[in-house]
Amino acid sequence: MIYKRKVQFYETDAQGVVHHSNYPRYFEEARGCYLEKIGYPYERVREDLNTDIVLIELQINYKKPLYFGDDFEIKFGISDMDKFFFSFEYTVLKNSSTIATGKTKHACLNRNTGKIISIPDILRSKLNGT
Amino acid sequence: MIYKRKVQFYETDAQGVVHHSNYPRYFEEARGCYLEKIGYPYERVREDLNTDIVLIELQINYKKPLYFGDDFEIKFGISDMDKFFFSFEYTVLKNSSTIATGKTKHACLNRNTGKIISIPDILRSKLNGT
Amino acid sequence: MIYKRKVQFYETDAQGVVHHSNYPRYFEEARGCYLEKIGYPYERVREDLNTDIVLIELQINYKKPLYFGDDFEIKFGISDMDKFFFSFEYTVLKNSSTIATGKTKHACLNRNTGKIISIPDILRSKLNGT
Amino acid sequence: MIYKRKVQFYETDAQGVVHHSNYPRYFEEARGCYLEKIGYPYERVREDLNTDIVLIELQINYKKPLYFGDDFEIKFGISDMDKFFFSFEYTVLKNSSTIATGKTKHACLNRNTGKIISIPDILRSKLNGT
Repeated sequence: MIYKRKVQFYETDAQGVVHHSNYPRYFEEARGCYLEKIGYPYERVREDLNTDIVLIELQINYKKPLYFGDDFEIKFGISDMDKFFFSFEYTVLKNSSTIATGKTKHACLNRNTGKIISIPDILRSKLNGT
Repeated sequence: MIYKRKVQFYETDAQGVVHHSNYPRYFEEARGCYLEKIGYPYERVREDLNTDIVLIELQINYKKPLYFGDDFEIKFGISDMDKFFFSFEYTVLKNSSTIATGKTKHACLNRNTGKIISIPDILRSKLNGT
Repeated sequence: MIYKRKVQFYETDAQGVVHHSNYPRYFEEARGCYLEKIGYPYERVREDLNTDIVLIELQINYKKPLYFGDDFEIKFGISDMDKFFFSFEYTVLKNSSTIATGKTKHACLNRNTGKIISIPDILRSKLNGT
Repeated sequence: MIYKRKVQFYETDAQGVVHHSNYPRYFEEARGCYLEKIGYPYERVREDLNTDIVLIELQINYKKPLYFGDDFEIKFGISDMDKFFFSFEYTVLKNSSTIATGKTKHACLNRNTGKIISIPDILRSKLNGT
């Protein structure tokens, strides 16, 4: 899937580039878009399934900077899923040039207990595209 | 009261100065410090009184920039309080020079209903310093 | 002009609503969109005119909260302009209901000296829609 | 080295915990503190050496959440350094319990060219504690 975005001024820092802490936010935006596209937006995961999706691992390699006003895109998708965990992999691109790559690993929590639960069946089948 | 702080790199923007959206955050930090000093930290307001404090008005005048690494202080205090609302006024200073001034107006909400309630007596007396 | 946006998860806080410090960022996004629409994006203001646009006054009235996933729009436009300063006024709307109103006042700086300059003619005429 | 911090309200999200994108910011704060302690604050690196320190790899494992008002500490130090790159490793602790672990890898850039340079000798010797 592809998520498109433009760099906002408040995302830049005094080095004149996008501050690295914004990339996990861009990835979160992309995942939100993903859940919407598969017909199960995160709002519904939270309300219908009483489930929070949490991040348990984050990995980013920064290769080139993004500047204010840049149009970029994130090519991403699910790279891995078992009973409890699923992962996304991301490539941030500007004019076909790789800006950064990343990976995030997620678990589902019951919103009342805060405990990790197995990925709810309905969410799993949606994530699987089945 | 005085709240002291140092500018972090992630708070700067591509103009090389602190982005204006950080000042409301600095004010929030200062208020958190205030509630602690008067012996009623915001965690307790939320848990013991089941009350959220919300911002209903924000006003900031920006006079000079703050730069990465700057040490600054916020001189602030309660400027106004009635049955439902209370306000803080702030002066952001660096080396005795005024960087910005601000004002925030707040109300209390019942955390279950989300409705505005009169300022709880215990919080009012603490805010009054009585 | 109207700027449309969706609330991101990272913009919410532990009260379950959009943190107030994001509204100045939404306004900045809206202004960025404005400069693009009038054919003079902020990147060009900075590069072609060697000019920074800075915020000198910010005022926001918060009436109702925004929640994660909310679609909202900002109705806004220039409310005032003289030799040195121009202002925008904003209304944040969700389903035609007013969430917040705001005002920002701006000046132009020479990027080398950091001094306030009169609004460059080309920018003024674009802002005026002439 | 140990860096101490308190969770701010604006760092929480609608799950009621610190949003994951704040951890890279906490690590940056810790590194800033580190450079100060070794007598070579980042402001001086930028000005005296005309050098930017950039992040090229980020890795975080999130084990337990942080909540609003939590006092936590970051135990951290340099884990690796060669001609061009140096790395920090971090453990985020609350009441001796591990909240998260992380690693960051950095390079130095000439601020004019934006090109990677070998770590300046003065900075290297300070980082080495020699």
